[in-house]
Amino acid sequence: MWQITYDDVESIAIGAGILGTGGGGNPYLGRLLMQSLIEQGRTATVIRIEDIADDALVTEVGGMGAPTVGIEKLPNGEEPRWVIEALERYIGRPIDAIICAEIGGANSIQPLVAAALTGKPVLDGDGMGRAFPELQMSTHFIDGAPCTPAALVDEKNNCIIFGSITDPYALEKFARDLCILMGCRAELAVPVMTGAQVKRSAVRSTLSLSKRLGDAVRLARARKTSITDAILAVTGGAELFIGKLVDVQRRTTGGFARGEILVEGLGRFHHQWMRVAFQNENLVAWMGDQPEACDQVVICVPDLICLIETESGEPVTTEQLRYGLRMTVLGIPCSDKLRTPLALKVVGPAAFGYPEVTYVPMPKVTGVGLE
Amino acid sequence: MWQITYDDVESIAIGAGILGTGGGGNPYLGRLLMQSLIEQGRTATVIRIEDIADDALVTEVGGMGAPTVGIEKLPNGEEPRWVIEALERYIGRPIDAIICAEIGGANSIQPLVAAALTGKPVLDGDGMGRAFPELQMSTHFIDGAPCTPAALVDEKNNCIIFGSITDPYALEKFARDLCILMGCRAELAVPVMTGAQVKRSAVRSTLSLSKRLGDAVRLARARKTSITDAILAVTGGAELFIGKLVDVQRRTTGGFARGEILVEGLGRFHHQWMRVAFQNENLVAWMGDQPEACDQVVICVPDLICLIETESGEPVTTEQLRYGLRMTVLGIPCSDKLRTPLALKVVGPAAFGYPEVTYVPMPKVTGVGLE
Repeated sequence: MWQITYDDVESIAIGAGILGTGGGGNPYLGRLLMQSLIEQGRTATVIRIEDIADDALVTEVGGMGAPTVGIEKLPNGEEPRWVIEALERYIGRPIDAIICAEIGGANSIQPLVAAALTGKPVLDGDGMGRAFPELQMSTHFIDGAPCTPAALVDEKNNCIIFGSITDPYALEKFARDLCILMGCRAELAVPVMTGAQVKRSAVRSTLSLSKRLGDAVRLARARKTSITDAILAVTGGAELFIGKLVDVQRRTTGGFARGEILVEGLGRFHHQWMRVAFQNENLVAWMGDQPEACDQVVICVPDLICLIETESGEPVTTEQLRYGLRMTVLGIPCSDKLRTPLALKVVGPAAFGYPEVTYVPMPKVTGVGLE
Repeated sequence: MWQITYDDVESIAIGAGILGTGGGGNPYLGRLLMQSLIEQGRTATVIRIEDIADDALVTEVGGMGAPTVGIEKLPNGEEPRWVIEALERYIGRPIDAIICAEIGGANSIQPLVAAALTGKPVLDGDGMGRAFPELQMSTHFIDGAPCTPAALVDEKNNCIIFGSITDPYALEKFARDLCILMGCRAELAVPVMTGAQVKRSAVRSTLSLSKRLGDAVRLARARKTSITDAILAVTGGAELFIGKLVDVQRRTTGGFARGEILVEGLGRFHHQWMRVAFQNENLVAWMGDQPEACDQVVICVPDLICLIETESGEPVTTEQLRYGLRMTVLGIPCSDKLRTPLALKVVGPAAFGYPEVTYVPMPKVTGVGLE
C-alpha cells in the first residue's frame, strides 16, 4: 500500500508512457490535474491486488478516443468521478476500488485522478499490461469477465449506460461510435468485476512497475548514464533500433489515430530503415536496408514496441510523432496473459489486420518486467 | 377505459397509418403480433389521460429507425417489454402506464404490445398527434419534459440507458447513431414523465381517434361509400390531390428513409402534378402544372400530409411508395400544441431543411380531428 506523491505522478507518467507503446493518451494534462489535486491535499492510495477482498467490486476507468484529439479537446476534469458515480447509481452499490484499464500515458493517471476525486483505492495492476486501442483487448474479457454494466460520459456529463451487450466486440463498436459523436474523447468505466475476477485476470504490479521505470529514467537522466540501459534493466526488453524519424503518415479515422512511421537508422543502424505501423498503439515494426523495402518483421503485438526520444528518454506517443525526432525503438516482452492461444486471437497481429505476420514471442528475463 | 379487441387492432392500424403521414413504421408485423397476443388471452387496457394520477410514472415506447428497414428486419417481439424493464431497473421503480410516442402505423401498435406483455395500461394520447422522424419533435420535450432517462434495446437485447443527456437534440443524435449500428431498427422508451406532465403536454385521445378513423374507413369500404369523405368527417381535413404516382426517389440514409415522390393528377386534377418530400414522414407538398415546376406549396409540416390508396383507403407508408399507385393526398390540421411559435421552431418546415417554406395553418373544424 502506498500513497501517490507529486513526484510519483511524474515517474508514472514517464514509465506508463513507455509501456503504453505510443497510446493510452498523452499524460500531460492528466499529470497536471493529478498534481494539482495532490497540492490541494487529495491523493490516491495504491493497494496490491492480493489485498482486495474476493467479493469487493472493482471497475476500470479510462479515456477512450484518438490521442490526436485528446491533446486538443480539454476535459472537464470531473469525468472520472461522474463515470464511476453513474455506474454506482446503475448497480445500486458502491464500487470498492478502481483499476487501470491499460498502462499508457493518460490512462494510468486517470484512475489516480478518479481515486483522488472519490476517495477509493487504486489497485496495482491493469487489464492489458500495456495499452491497446480496442475494448475487447483486455485480459479480463479474454478470461470471460462480463462486459456490462459499463458507463460512458463526456465533458458535458452526457452519460450513457450499457446495461447488456452481446460481447466485448459489440461494446467496442457501440462505445466507439458514441465516443466519436462525443468528439473523439470520452471517459469509460467497465467492467464491474469482483476482487476474485481481478485476482484471476489482471496483469499485476504494473502501476508500481511504471513508477520504477520512470524513476530509473529520471535517475539515468540526472546521472547522465544510459537511459536505454535503465529502461531495459527494469523491463527486460531489448534495443531494436536507433534513428531519425523521416516520414509520418497519420490520420484520425474511425475514432482512432492510424498510420505508419519510417525511421532512418543512425550509428550502428546506419543504412537501415525501420517502419512501424500503429492504431493509437504501435502494432508491428519491420526493418530493411531500403526505405521502400522494410519488410522483415522485427517485433509485433502483443509484445511492446516502445518509442523513446533518444536524448531525454521521454516516451513518444502517437500524436507527438513528427519529422526529425531522434528516437530509440525498444521491444519489451508482454505479459504471459497475452501469450495464450486464446489471447493471441484477440491481441495477436491478425486481430489488427496483419494475418501475414507471425507472432514470435520475445524471450523473457525471469523476475523482471511484466508478469 | 376500454380493452383492445382483435378488431380494434385492425382499425387502429388503418387510422394510425393515415395519421402517421407515411411514417411510424409499417403496422403489418405489429398488428399480427398484437392480434396473436389477443388470441392468447392477453390484451391492453386503454385509459383516458385525465384518469391517470398526477404522480404516476408514464413512458413512451416505440420503434426507432428507417421504415424501409423495419419491413425487412424482423424483431424478436419482446423488445417493448425489455425496454420498459430496462428503464424500471434504472429508476428503481415500476412504470405505471405507457403512452404512444407518436401516432403512426407500427408505433401506435407497439405500446399496445408493450401493455399486453407487461400488464400496464396504455393512455389514450401521444406526444405528436401524428408521426415525426426525430426524437426532439415531441410535445413533451417542447413543453420542457426532461429527455432522460431513456432506454434503447435491439432484437438481441443489447440494452443501452441514457442517464443524462444535454437536450433532446443530443439524445436524437446519440440514439440515432446507436440505432444505425443496431441495424436501423431499435426500440426506445423515453421520457419517464409524471402523470401531471402527460396531462399538460400530451396530444389527447389520439388512440381512440385512430380507432374511429379506421372504423370509418372500414365501414365506408363495406358500404361502398366514399372513403375520403369518411376520413375527412373524422379528421376535419381536406382532399388536396388525386393522382397516380409516377416517380419515387427514396434512399435510406443517416438512419432515415428520405426522398420525394411525384404524382400525376387524375380526374379534376388532370394536367396537374404534386411533389411530396419526406423524411420517414411526409414533410411538404408542392403543386404545379408541369412535373418539373411543382413549386407552389400546398401544405407543410406540422400539418398532416396523408397518402391513401384511392381504391381501398389504406394508408400508404413511405416504404410502400411505388410507381403506379393510385393515391389520394389528404391534408389534416395538426394539433394546436404543434402550432405555437415554440413548437414551430422544432417541427416547422425550417426544422426539416425548408426555411423558404412558410407555414400557413390549415383551418380547423371545431370538435373534430386532433385536439
